Amino acid sequence: MTATVEFWFEFASTYSYPAAMRIETEAQARGVIVEWRPFLLGPIFGAQGLKDTPFNIYPTKGKYMLRDLQRICAELDLPFVLPSPFPQNSLLCARIATALEGAPRIRFAQAAYELEFGEGRTISDPLNAAEALRRAGLDPAIIEKAQEESVKMALRAATDEAMAKGCFGAPSFVTPDGELFWGNDRLEAALNWAAKHAK
Amino acid sequence: MTATVEFWFEFASTYSYPAAMRIETEAQARGVIVEWRPFLLGPIFGAQGLKDTPFNIYPTKGKYMLRDLQRICAELDLPFVLPSPFPQNSLLCARIATALEGAPRIRFAQAAYELEFGEGRTISDPLNAAEALRRAGLDPAIIEKAQEESVKMALRAATDEAMAKGCFGAPSFVTPDGELFWGNDRLEAALNWAAKHAK
Repeated sequence: MTATVEFWFEFASTYSYPAAMRIETEAQARGVIVEWRPFLLGPIFGAQGLKDTPFNIYPTKGKYMLRDLQRICAELDLPFVLPSPFPQNSLLCARIATALEGAPRIRFAQAAYELEFGEGRTISDPLNAAEALRRAGLDPAIIEKAQEESVKMALRAATDEAMAKGCFGAPSFVTPDGELFWGNDRLEAALNWAAKHAK
Repeated sequence: MTATVEFWFEFASTYSYPAAMRIETEAQARGVIVEWRPFLLGPIFGAQGLKDTPFNIYPTKGKYMLRDLQRICAELDLPFVLPSPFPQNSLLCARIATALEGAPRIRFAQAAYELEFGEGRTISDPLNAAEALRRAGLDPAIIEKAQEESVKMALRAATDEAMAKGCFGAPSFVTPDGELFWGNDRLEAALNWAAKHAK
């Protein structure tokens, strides 16, 4: 009996940051194994007719999100600096994460989030992506590999899979029995569900 | 030193239902006094250029919301039946709640939510509004009073106040020091903030 959950994260997503920094601790406490799934929200927003993040389309919501994130990160003792421009172009990091697997994927993702939302740095810049790889103890040459056609196609397939599973925002969590949970604030509920309904 | 929080609720809002049913228990556990503030989301959505609830504009989000609500209500042992049409026209109930004060306002609001989302009944129907008043131990004649110009104006002023305080959805919670929290899932955070920063 192994409890698992898919963790769908998008590097441009602010709420994916606290989720990425805390999910392993919360999952281990419940005996749940997390499958880290990078994807792109852009095509999913596009399919809904959205040309930008709702946080920019609805400025009142965007202003609230910033304050909410400040409070959430303060509670978790995580630094928070919004990068400019917002949202960041997350394509390069999503491809790098797709080119990696297992623990290296997790270490890179956390290092990239740390740079982006902990320090406000531009993650579309290959120098910063290389820095995230270095911090994760990985070879910056992976950036080359991330440009291969197979990686691009795998990321596109992952995004299609996320959409097929009902994802419309990030972070999202999907359990093996098909339950979808959306948002950093549903992380515990998703892990609890996965632990309770493991087969 | 009294800790207080404003609880901004909208009768058409699904997530306001579990919040309304549990906030008093959670507030009392923290020594926080809740000020129940009925308002209308319609004019606020309108000011953002939205002509309907985001749950209808973005069907994938609407479908998710339903499942999320089912899970949340199951966890709280609350019945959940989505009324048709959705969203309901909440004007009558918002006016009745505005015409009431203190404990009667709370009892009426909870009875109306119970009818609407616990039993799937149409709250724009005066017969159902009267039933909610009866269940709350109140005189159904209050429905007449709720049509007075002063009540209409008070509800309009409350909606303007909510918007001025940054509310863009429901339920919302506002603390005396101006912190805004949005969503049933921020109820605890709002109460904790109010308790911690009481003057």
